[in-house]
Amino acid sequence: MQRKKHKQKSKLGMPPGSLVFTGVQKMAEVDICVFNYDETFENEIRAKTTDELIKLINSTKGVVWINIDGLHDEKTIEQICTFLDIHKLSMEDILSIGQRPKIEEYANYLHVVLKEINLDQKDDIIEFEQISFILKNNVLVSFQEKSGDVFDGVRRRIREGNGSVRKRGADYLLYALLDNIIDHYFVVLEIFGEKLEKLETELLENPDKSTLSKLHNFRRETLGLRRTVYPLREMVASIEKLDDLLFGSNNRIFTRDLYDHTIKVVETVEIFRDMTSSLLDLYINSVSNKMNEIMKVLTIMTSIFIPLTFIAGVYGMNFSNMPELKHKYGYFVILGVMAVVVLGMLYYLKRKKWL
Amino acid sequence: MQRKKHKQKSKLGMPPGSLVFTGVQKMAEVDICVFNYDETFENEIRAKTTDELIKLINSTKGVVWINIDGLHDEKTIEQICTFLDIHKLSMEDILSIGQRPKIEEYANYLHVVLKEINLDQKDDIIEFEQISFILKNNVLVSFQEKSGDVFDGVRRRIREGNGSVRKRGADYLLYALLDNIIDHYFVVLEIFGEKLEKLETELLENPDKSTLSKLHNFRRETLGLRRTVYPLREMVASIEKLDDLLFGSNNRIFTRDLYDHTIKVVETVEIFRDMTSSLLDLYINSVSNKMNEIMKVLTIMTSIFIPLTFIAGVYGMNFSNMPELKHKYGYFVILGVMAVVVLGMLYYLKRKKWL
Amino acid sequence: MQRKKHKQKSKLGMPPGSLVFTGVQKMAEVDICVFNYDETFENEIRAKTTDELIKLINSTKGVVWINIDGLHDEKTIEQICTFLDIHKLSMEDILSIGQRPKIEEYANYLHVVLKEINLDQKDDIIEFEQISFILKNNVLVSFQEKSGDVFDGVRRRIREGNGSVRKRGADYLLYALLDNIIDHYFVVLEIFGEKLEKLETELLENPDKSTLSKLHNFRRETLGLRRTVYPLREMVASIEKLDDLLFGSNNRIFTRDLYDHTIKVVETVEIFRDMTSSLLDLYINSVSNKMNEIMKVLTIMTSIFIPLTFIAGVYGMNFSNMPELKHKYGYFVILGVMAVVVLGMLYYLKRKKWL
Amino acid sequence: MQRKKHKQKSKLGMPPGSLVFTGVQKMAEVDICVFNYDETFENEIRAKTTDELIKLINSTKGVVWINIDGLHDEKTIEQICTFLDIHKLSMEDILSIGQRPKIEEYANYLHVVLKEINLDQKDDIIEFEQISFILKNNVLVSFQEKSGDVFDGVRRRIREGNGSVRKRGADYLLYALLDNIIDHYFVVLEIFGEKLEKLETELLENPDKSTLSKLHNFRRETLGLRRTVYPLREMVASIEKLDDLLFGSNNRIFTRDLYDHTIKVVETVEIFRDMTSSLLDLYINSVSNKMNEIMKVLTIMTSIFIPLTFIAGVYGMNFSNMPELKHKYGYFVILGVMAVVVLGMLYYLKRKKWL
Amino acid sequence: MQRKKHKQKSKLGMPPGSLVFTGVQKMAEVDICVFNYDETFENEIRAKTTDELIKLINSTKGVVWINIDGLHDEKTIEQICTFLDIHKLSMEDILSIGQRPKIEEYANYLHVVLKEINLDQKDDIIEFEQISFILKNNVLVSFQEKSGDVFDGVRRRIREGNGSVRKRGADYLLYALLDNIIDHYFVVLEIFGEKLEKLETELLENPDKSTLSKLHNFRRETLGLRRTVYPLREMVASIEKLDDLLFGSNNRIFTRDLYDHTIKVVETVEIFRDMTSSLLDLYINSVSNKMNEIMKVLTIMTSIFIPLTFIAGVYGMNFSNMPELKHKYGYFVILGVMAVVVLGMLYYLKRKKWL
Repeated sequence: MQRKKHKQKSKLGMPPGSLVFTGVQKMAEVDICVFNYDETFENEIRAKTTDELIKLINSTKGVVWINIDGLHDEKTIEQICTFLDIHKLSMEDILSIGQRPKIEEYANYLHVVLKEINLDQKDDIIEFEQISFILKNNVLVSFQEKSGDVFDGVRRRIREGNGSVRKRGADYLLYALLDNIIDHYFVVLEIFGEKLEKLETELLENPDKSTLSKLHNFRRETLGLRRTVYPLREMVASIEKLDDLLFGSNNRIFTRDLYDHTIKVVETVEIFRDMTSSLLDLYINSVSNKMNEIMKVLTIMTSIFIPLTFIAGVYGMNFSNMPELKHKYGYFVILGVMAVVVLGMLYYLKRKKWL
Repeated sequence: MQRKKHKQKSKLGMPPGSLVFTGVQKMAEVDICVFNYDETFENEIRAKTTDELIKLINSTKGVVWINIDGLHDEKTIEQICTFLDIHKLSMEDILSIGQRPKIEEYANYLHVVLKEINLDQKDDIIEFEQISFILKNNVLVSFQEKSGDVFDGVRRRIREGNGSVRKRGADYLLYALLDNIIDHYFVVLEIFGEKLEKLETELLENPDKSTLSKLHNFRRETLGLRRTVYPLREMVASIEKLDDLLFGSNNRIFTRDLYDHTIKVVETVEIFRDMTSSLLDLYINSVSNKMNEIMKVLTIMTSIFIPLTFIAGVYGMNFSNMPELKHKYGYFVILGVMAVVVLGMLYYLKRKKWL
Repeated sequence: MQRKKHKQKSKLGMPPGSLVFTGVQKMAEVDICVFNYDETFENEIRAKTTDELIKLINSTKGVVWINIDGLHDEKTIEQICTFLDIHKLSMEDILSIGQRPKIEEYANYLHVVLKEINLDQKDDIIEFEQISFILKNNVLVSFQEKSGDVFDGVRRRIREGNGSVRKRGADYLLYALLDNIIDHYFVVLEIFGEKLEKLETELLENPDKSTLSKLHNFRRETLGLRRTVYPLREMVASIEKLDDLLFGSNNRIFTRDLYDHTIKVVETVEIFRDMTSSLLDLYINSVSNKMNEIMKVLTIMTSIFIPLTFIAGVYGMNFSNMPELKHKYGYFVILGVMAVVVLGMLYYLKRKKWL
Repeated sequence: MQRKKHKQKSKLGMPPGSLVFTGVQKMAEVDICVFNYDETFENEIRAKTTDELIKLINSTKGVVWINIDGLHDEKTIEQICTFLDIHKLSMEDILSIGQRPKIEEYANYLHVVLKEINLDQKDDIIEFEQISFILKNNVLVSFQEKSGDVFDGVRRRIREGNGSVRKRGADYLLYALLDNIIDHYFVVLEIFGEKLEKLETELLENPDKSTLSKLHNFRRETLGLRRTVYPLREMVASIEKLDDLLFGSNNRIFTRDLYDHTIKVVETVEIFRDMTSSLLDLYINSVSNKMNEIMKVLTIMTSIFIPLTFIAGVYGMNFSNMPELKHKYGYFVILGVMAVVVLGMLYYLKRKKWL
Repeated sequence: MQRKKHKQKSKLGMPPGSLVFTGVQKMAEVDICVFNYDETFENEIRAKTTDELIKLINSTKGVVWINIDGLHDEKTIEQICTFLDIHKLSMEDILSIGQRPKIEEYANYLHVVLKEINLDQKDDIIEFEQISFILKNNVLVSFQEKSGDVFDGVRRRIREGNGSVRKRGADYLLYALLDNIIDHYFVVLEIFGEKLEKLETELLENPDKSTLSKLHNFRRETLGLRRTVYPLREMVASIEKLDDLLFGSNNRIFTRDLYDHTIKVVETVEIFRDMTSSLLDLYINSVSNKMNEIMKVLTIMTSIFIPLTFIAGVYGMNFSNMPELKHKYGYFVILGVMAVVVLGMLYYLKRKKWL
């Protein structure tokens, strides 16, 4: 249950706005994929240079969705951001993984940062991937740490033109992508929840030492999730209050739906937290119960055999004058006495409900 | 104590507003039952087709209450909603079980979602059934997961015309139905509370291993209840602030009453939560106490018999020169010494209050 | 430590405003006692019929205080309320015991509900009695579950005309009665607190099994108190914001005093809660300490005698060739060895601070 | 560790504003000490009668600070208050010890109540003394339960004329006195904190039974402190919002400083609370650890000697046909076997890290 | 794990605004270092006298940053503050270490106090150093307890003229310094976090007594951190609301960034708190588990050998008439019986999953 950890590069002493990618490079080359569409056409390009991108943006009136997988090529990202007139601090945030989910309104664009989650099922560890969005007029740029995401449903809807994504602007596209990210939380939480229930069964039936460390792991992951999910709620709530020019008010009703989903995510995580702490109490108690059972066995064995052993010891003494020893049925009488002691002891234990 | 679980169907990747029933089909056929009444007449129909419904709504001025049991027939539900001009997202919410209790104002209708609770008495598990309401002018549509509900009192009052339900509009009907749902919470909570008290008695008198798992179950159910009941409070509170056109202000005083009841539900659940955690502490302590008792018996037995066994052991040694052994009364003297040891030990234990 | 419980009668399915007394009848007949006074005169009547009451109210300009002990005679109460033009929901609340403390402003009267508390000293159980007030112009009606209350001080002041109660209106009378109820909380809390301190002493000095169940009882009662006392604070706070026509603003300064007292009640209950949970921790720890002590005795006894018994056992073996056995002082040497073992063991235990 | 307790006299049934001293008389005679000063002169009088006081107040334009030690002489206090035109409820609060810290604005004067704390170092108990202030124009009256306070610094500054106290009005004097009271909290908290740290060391090094009851005592005292200190914060915060006529706005900057100090007091108490609960956890764990150690010793002793004793027992049996017994080296072989058993056992325990 | 503690000098009884350094002198001489720069020039001086400073401030139009290491020379500091027209209470705060982080607006200057943190890696203790800033027009004065800080990055940027620090005013310099202080929190928290993870591994693999005291230490340090970090958030949040004349509004966007970082610091500390309490639970449980294991061994040893020893004891009795003893194969039969007992016991323990 080794935890993967990526140490952030220290940026101490650098001036604010310094563009340094602080994460771990997870893929060889930055991959830029562009969707250009409106109600009437749809076009997919795998862009090579920034110039191509700029030319495209300048020439089209449709929505342009630029998806960038990989953040280690700081120069390319800077070029795109500079062309879009993005503030230095925004650029810094895009490159610094480890941002809290937030939404920031700038004069002429919107900057959204949040995390996508995935479950490393082997180790039951939740992995976070930072995704940033820049929304400016009809252009949406999405920045991801690595390839592979949860946007395939949206891509298909753009290609096939079903749903209303092609009929609406880049702000609706942003909403649709956010919706997919948050829906994916449910998928991960559901698997996580099932694992938690399996742990519960294990705990009630046959807890052992590894159960404890599994439980501890779940608890830690839940704590981590909670920290990610709380600011998410705030963030989604603030979408409703955005300037109309940045995020069209005709999308309001959808953001309300998004907010409902986010609340449910938060609640599910809260339930997990309560569950893990409830399971921990259960664990402590089963350990105590087990100890009690062990002690009972010990006490029963001791209580029965120690008096018997003592009696045997008495008649094992070598005194020259021990009248009982010479009695013909002495041995059998003593065996009888022992039997009585055992029965008495058993009766006593029965009455105490230890047997 | 198996927990029944219905896995939600994943809707990942579908466009928002997709109409998919995410629950488990609990009955064979959707059952649509319509009440049409005003102060002067009352009429009950079991509708077969959507067309009948539409005709009825168009032709009457009285209140129309359409109750739909079963949500798996997505098409019928869509037709009704479309006729009433309900937003796609509302429809989606009606079909997706697992919604949080909420009340949503749309331009021309009101959408209410909440849970009815029932207690599966065999397993002490609380079951939730989602109930949605659409209130539009004189039409109230209620959607339930399955047949069987808590509305029979209201039905009787409509039929018999007692109370003020026939004299007031569809908004009062909505209030009356909500009131019944929340009153039913009390019924369930009371049974739950009685079971909790029985558990308390069991715990104080004769706790065993199953007590712990019962306690754990109660705790989990209480956590679940709490999550359902908290948003209920918010929801009911927001009724007071609704637009007059959607929910008549002459019903305000009743919603205040509803709110009082909801607060009491919340408080009762809170008391259960405190009770279960208090019972858990009690359990931990009784287990510790029991262990103490066991250890005491063990220690007493050991403390009394081990020294005696040792003495017997000494005189069981086979040394050729052990003067005591040859003494005529040696055996009896040693028996006396043993008695003294036992008495001393008993006195010591008495003074320690272990006996 | 049996808990008295009165199951509320279920009102499920009844229309709102149904007048059913939900408590347990605690006295044979409803007792109506009326005070009529102003600065110049004072008059006490034990009313028999509602008509008498109505005549009195219509004919006097002084303050009329109608105190009703016993709620099971629903008809009489309905008549009085109807004469005073009280809303159906208010009547329902007066008859339903189990209300949360609250203050409700109606168009022409004020409705106050709260609990009086008493301590059943034998079982250390706090009993709640619901008291409702209706304040309308110069008439104050108080409804109690049973006879016997904390208002004797006020009655005496009315009779003797000392204090300012005779010089002020029915609203001041309401304040004075509330003040007495809340002052009585202190009396009960003080006794409760003393019992808690006695429990603390018991716990520190000689805890046993019954201590735990007493502690559990205190905790439960404290939880119950807390639930009653929290809404009380809210309620008293809202008095300050009442309409001047319902509650004269010249009484404001007194309600501030009332609020201070309520806060103190809340704080005292909070202290009790902290105390009980602190005592529980203390209990857990003393149990652990006791167990430690028991285990120490066990371990000391075992550690000393088991090696000795072993040595004795060795020389109890019947080998034909055991040179030590034939040695003249073998026995005494072995006794010496045993003494050395005991001393060594004692030294070891001393150093470990177990002796 | 006996807790001193002063039972409040019950005031149940008395009309509001009744002047009864509810504390314990702590000194023989009420001691009234008056300071009269302005920038140019300073005058100290020990007043005997109320008339003297009244004459002084009427004749001077300087600040008059009347300090009254002892509250049991209700008549004198009433005379002074009546002359100053103080409301009955204020007088009642001055005489009722057990008030929460508060500040109350009346039409023409300011009423401040708070607690001074002292540490009874022998029993580690924090003692509270209620101090009330009445500020009216140039007159400040302070009421204390007993002689001995923390105002000597202010008295010296008045006498010597250093600092700005002589140059400013009675409101600044009030601030200076409050400042001294709160600064004294730090002194007490520091000593308390040192004792807590000593307890921590004791706990880590050599916890015993008395440690637990000390810890419990600290916890209780911390809870008590917390209840006193929280309303203090509120109270000091509300000074900033006082009417300019009652408390000059040119003192605002000083009250901000006062507020900062109060916050620090609150935080220190919070740290103590966290510390005590952290220490409790530490205690529980050290007890568990100790138990573990005891059990280890028991188990080691038992595991080593029980098999040996059994072997010895076998060869102590008296069967006529036991070939080993007759073997010449049988005894020595068995001793060897025993040594092997011991070594095996030690190896096993070593590997388990129990040795 | 000795905790370094510096007792604050008591200031009780001194008038407010008394200038006394309440810390421990950490360096021999106060060291004053001045940076004077604007976009075109940069100048570093090590000032000796206050006069030099005053001359410089009067003669330059560029930004003047005066950094003072060491607070024990109260006179020098008073001279500088007096020249800058700083309020007595501000001066007092600068000299009193132990201030809460805060930002105070005065009529013509800004006063900022916060803590720099450092980790004493040997003892895992977090050390706090108070840093105060006075910002007045183009002059920024920083006061530190001792030399050595986290401002070298800023100094380099001033010297080399990169970043925008030279192009902006003293308010931006203040921001840059605050940013460095808060970034340094991350550096310390990261090391702290790594130590916590090492402790977690230790705890899961091989907990011993020292683990507990380490854990306790971490917990205490986390509590301390939390108290420092919470007011920091408030403080940074209030920067945004400062008067434009004191802190230029063109720096707003940077303070938002600063706020984000502070929130992250707070969250990290919260995670540490949750981690330590989670680790404590883990510790308690591993101790219980270990105890269980010990008890199991004890019980197994006892359960197997006690019956055997008893059987051996029986046949060690010296009765004259014990038929079995004379049987030729009696001994071997009994050995067989013992083997059966052992096997039965092993089977029983196996079934109980204790082996």
